[in-house]
Amino acid sequence: MSSALQVTVPDGVPFIDFTREFDYPVADVYRAHASAELMSQWLGPRDLEMEVGRFDFRPGGGYEYTHVAPTGDRYEFRGTFHTVRENDKVIQTFEFLGFPDVVSIETLTFEDLGDGRTRLSGHAVYPTVEARDGMASSGMEEGMKQGYEQLDELLAKSAA
Amino acid sequence: MSSALQVTVPDGVPFIDFTREFDYPVADVYRAHASAELMSQWLGPRDLEMEVGRFDFRPGGGYEYTHVAPTGDRYEFRGTFHTVRENDKVIQTFEFLGFPDVVSIETLTFEDLGDGRTRLSGHAVYPTVEARDGMASSGMEEGMKQGYEQLDELLAKSAA
Repeated sequence: MSSALQVTVPDGVPFIDFTREFDYPVADVYRAHASAELMSQWLGPRDLEMEVGRFDFRPGGGYEYTHVAPTGDRYEFRGTFHTVRENDKVIQTFEFLGFPDVVSIETLTFEDLGDGRTRLSGHAVYPTVEARDGMASSGMEEGMKQGYEQLDELLAKSAA
Repeated sequence: MSSALQVTVPDGVPFIDFTREFDYPVADVYRAHASAELMSQWLGPRDLEMEVGRFDFRPGGGYEYTHVAPTGDRYEFRGTFHTVRENDKVIQTFEFLGFPDVVSIETLTFEDLGDGRTRLSGHAVYPTVEARDGMASSGMEEGMKQGYEQLDELLAKSAA
């Protein structure tokens, strides 16, 4: 069984950390982060549709996407890819345009656990502790949980 | 007189903050950050030469440069530009390749003080407090001080 999402919001420092394990090989988990077509099928809460504008997945590249709610509300995000190393590490910036100029930086690490299993770890750093607190209390954890469940389902279909 | 560099390294959070005022208009101070040719004349300590590889100063762009010491030692840096707004704000990532994967994000704010004067503020956020401490104790402040003195000299020449 894939392991539950673990999110840590440490006191006094502007970090959000998480780990999530998958019962799929690291190459498959990484590929699902490397393609706009795949990412738009799993990232974020189940009830939001994802429209990807730009997705230039390479060091020095960038992305823009919009989550669209059933109400029609639109949530726009953008960032740059500082580091992209296949099956290993992605370091990217992240901005929700609802809070312009509050830009975080996130390191995603893909770890091969053997036996076709993978651990994904994230370390996000916000410009202030207050901005981190705002993100942590925004429903982010539930959105991530649902997103990774959708990723499990997508990987199950690919493996089927 | 331009005002001295003020650097703040707050306890317990992974930030480095600074302010520096200039006796030159915001457009001139900004332009010196927007051009590889100008930047290479002032950024960093006096005894280092700066070689700029890539300098694509736009939202979603990036940069690569090398500081070369009199000994021939080379210090390589790279990053992405998340936000670039003329005479206002730059948000960029920063990595010294001597500490690979330790990537910080910095917000530079250019403020028009009137009377042809400008305040530059910086807020840099590191992935850990330890990485921030390492940067703060690396001679960074003296390098910045010398760099901004060189920028004053460059702006004085342009204004002459």
